Amino acid sequence: MNNDFKALKPYLDKAMAMNTAMALFEWDTETLAPKAAVDQTAKVLGVLAGESYNAVMNDEVKDIVYRLSKDVEEGKDEGLSKVEKGIVKQLKKDYEMLEKIPANEYQAFSELQAVGASRWAEAKKADDFDKFLPTLKSLIEYSRKFAGYRVKPGEKPYDVLLNDYEEGFNQEILDKFFGKLKEAIVPLLKKIKEKPQVEYEFLFKDYPVGKQREFSRFLAEYVGFAPDKGVIAESEHPFTNSLHNKDVRITNHYYENNLESAIFSIIHEAGHGIYEMNIPDELTQTIVGEGSSMGLHESQSRFCENIIGRSKAFWEPIYGKLVSTFPEQLKDVDLDKFITAINRTEPGLIRTEADELTYSLHVLVRYEVEKKIFNEDYPVEKLPELWNDLYEEYLGIRPDTYKDGILQDVHWSGGSFGYFSSYALGNAIGAELYHQMKKELDFDGLLRRGEVSKIMNWLKEKVHKYGKLKNTNEILLLATGEEFNADYYIDYLTEKFTKEYGL
Amino acid sequence: MNNDFKALKPYLDKAMAMNTAMALFEWDTETLAPKAAVDQTAKVLGVLAGESYNAVMNDEVKDIVYRLSKDVEEGKDEGLSKVEKGIVKQLKKDYEMLEKIPANEYQAFSELQAVGASRWAEAKKADDFDKFLPTLKSLIEYSRKFAGYRVKPGEKPYDVLLNDYEEGFNQEILDKFFGKLKEAIVPLLKKIKEKPQVEYEFLFKDYPVGKQREFSRFLAEYVGFAPDKGVIAESEHPFTNSLHNKDVRITNHYYENNLESAIFSIIHEAGHGIYEMNIPDELTQTIVGEGSSMGLHESQSRFCENIIGRSKAFWEPIYGKLVSTFPEQLKDVDLDKFITAINRTEPGLIRTEADELTYSLHVLVRYEVEKKIFNEDYPVEKLPELWNDLYEEYLGIRPDTYKDGILQDVHWSGGSFGYFSSYALGNAIGAELYHQMKKELDFDGLLRRGEVSKIMNWLKEKVHKYGKLKNTNEILLLATGEEFNADYYIDYLTEKFTKEYGL
Repeated sequence: MNNDFKALKPYLDKAMAMNTAMALFEWDTETLAPKAAVDQTAKVLGVLAGESYNAVMNDEVKDIVYRLSKDVEEGKDEGLSKVEKGIVKQLKKDYEMLEKIPANEYQAFSELQAVGASRWAEAKKADDFDKFLPTLKSLIEYSRKFAGYRVKPGEKPYDVLLNDYEEGFNQEILDKFFGKLKEAIVPLLKKIKEKPQVEYEFLFKDYPVGKQREFSRFLAEYVGFAPDKGVIAESEHPFTNSLHNKDVRITNHYYENNLESAIFSIIHEAGHGIYEMNIPDELTQTIVGEGSSMGLHESQSRFCENIIGRSKAFWEPIYGKLVSTFPEQLKDVDLDKFITAINRTEPGLIRTEADELTYSLHVLVRYEVEKKIFNEDYPVEKLPELWNDLYEEYLGIRPDTYKDGILQDVHWSGGSFGYFSSYALGNAIGAELYHQMKKELDFDGLLRRGEVSKIMNWLKEKVHKYGKLKNTNEILLLATGEEFNADYYIDYLTEKFTKEYGL
Repeated sequence: MNNDFKALKPYLDKAMAMNTAMALFEWDTETLAPKAAVDQTAKVLGVLAGESYNAVMNDEVKDIVYRLSKDVEEGKDEGLSKVEKGIVKQLKKDYEMLEKIPANEYQAFSELQAVGASRWAEAKKADDFDKFLPTLKSLIEYSRKFAGYRVKPGEKPYDVLLNDYEEGFNQEILDKFFGKLKEAIVPLLKKIKEKPQVEYEFLFKDYPVGKQREFSRFLAEYVGFAPDKGVIAESEHPFTNSLHNKDVRITNHYYENNLESAIFSIIHEAGHGIYEMNIPDELTQTIVGEGSSMGLHESQSRFCENIIGRSKAFWEPIYGKLVSTFPEQLKDVDLDKFITAINRTEPGLIRTEADELTYSLHVLVRYEVEKKIFNEDYPVEKLPELWNDLYEEYLGIRPDTYKDGILQDVHWSGGSFGYFSSYALGNAIGAELYHQMKKELDFDGLLRRGEVSKIMNWLKEKVHKYGKLKNTNEILLLATGEEFNADYYIDYLTEKFTKEYGL
């Protein structure tokens, strides 16, 4: 091993251990920890976060990283493996970001981030935007300032934020993407609105939670979530949490009267979880040992949830099992009726509850609002109005509360601006991979024969195995022969829903 | 705050955070973590343990602690609170222990401790003492050597080990305790053996696990385990785990055909848990913020399990609930029959399954074996024979396997010699507290009225609130007016079982 890299190892191991412990606490807090524990556990988390940060963000490590980085650039990197080079590159990126931001400002922003979620939660609960306004203003101000420090010639500050979540992406690319989306989906949705709604009420009968839990476990394992390397539990909102590639955890939430929520949440989280389980051993427990980006991660979960999970071929071999789990509730529902119901579309106010067709329109709204904020210095006070106008324009409905409107999501309260478009990108990346996959695999045939594992293996080989060593466009280029291309997604949605609603 | 102590805080906080994280991992490993996670999670734990140790075991901290310690001794401690003084005292103790042991030997011992449990588990599984023999020999050798380094004039090395687990206790005290115990219990047991066994088979009917789980939760909360500050889960062996006083976790294990195990395990662990929940806020998350000693901890759990949990008064208000939970299984069992069954005694080979009367005899065997090891340099090869002979002598039965004999318990494999007597001490301390409690409280009346909380409050005020600031004898003296006295326990057992079996 390269001597410089060897010197780096203890620092990296320390940060890894702290991060893994924090991940376990996060999991535990959401799934199990007693309510009264919060404050004292926060003290523990504060120390762990500090130790994690200081383990790698210090002058000793920085010196080594810059030296190693120079070696790599000059091709003098014989002793470094591909993974080690990836680690150096990632660390260098982190330093470059942080060194442009004055330490005191970064500290103040971190403190604001730490309290943001609880202020947002209070405001949402009280349905009072003004309660969140001062915090939101400060968060926006810092984000704008930091982006300003880091902006490169020709870039806009908002591009810096977008690039943080999805390397290589900017407003030019996203404007094109969302433009096409809007052009195709908004009119399609209007046409569908004139059609009679399909029958779907049977999904909301009384479905005992114990049975839902049992079937969800079956589904997760059926799509490839390995029980010897993973845990399935319950939390208020479903999520995925990875300690390393042999300990990946997903949750679900069960509602007595909603079968659909349990089924598609578990397939979604299993999609995230399988990505993390497929990270190779030589990458796991390093800073490049996780999914490449938010968008790519979301592409995997939504591919599983929608492209696989809402297809007729997927359900053919297992629908009988669902019916035998809920014989009373589903006695009059044949497979076709079930498939039609789970593929219905209807505009709603809440992104997390949106169907496949309308989902990205919710993201589009947030994207346009963020553009106004960062490009035009739009008054924060006026954002709710802007939000509501955009919902009316694109989805044809208007929120009459803040909590169903601009306050619905937690992300901004942690200072995450530029994050949301990853959700829509995830949908589009999934469709692009699907387009390629169909050329190489007998996709529907595999599903019909219950061989989901062959599809997941394709993803493992083409996407998962790289961890964070490659970015989205690099992975797409290798997997499909071209970089990001929104057309596949637009075509997929248009075709699917035109057919579904007989337009 | 004292400036020196202020300088100490970040080190202590760091160690606290590391230890809390380790506690959470331990909990998670025993209750939830996927099997394949072990090796990679061990890597995380290795780092956390190292960071915890280095946080306080370093020259900077040592200098401060010795300086503060001198201040305390000289009465120049105006700036220090009682808690802070306790912390300094505890740290000084740790240094004094460690500085007498050469670092390389301590390191080698730690490495042996780390592999001990898995070597023991293999040997136990194969029922092959020889497989464990080399490890056991080394563990004994190091322990003997370390005790030799630390022994004070007039002490024997084994006294050093005993004192580590129970401050102020030594062979002189324990010989007297176990001597009385042997003298009273062994003949009593022989007399009981001649009596016909009571009816108890109904405890081993088919008891659905779901119902056992539900009733166990009721029981834990009934004795005072607060659900907003605690978690109840399941593991192979029941245990208690505390992150801090607002996050205390206990587990149970359910067997389809054993109601008794679930009931008394949950009350036992609740006893441990309530102790930890009652640690005051100013102590929790410090090194004096836990139960005072192993023996005192066990006194609380076994007091709950046996003195409360096997009493008729305790069951009077809740036996109806048990019957209505298991109406079929208990339809012919009235309260008296139930009480008689749960108080039966019968010598067995396994300590953890022992009844109230025979339990401490199991500990006596281990104590006598350890004395031979450390006082007489008894050949390790011959320990199984010695073990079996003692079982025959005291309990009237002889193990015919190692796994039901000397290999039954894990403790030695972690180098814990001198630990076991705490179990018997716990029983005796509980009886001593009970003796005092009955003078101050209408004990049976409270139980009959379902007011267990008044009894637990007594324990909180007399025992729990001190955390580790006082040792067993200090606490007993304050609570009862005298230090440890075995007579109460001997009398309690003799009276109870003489009556129970109509002798």
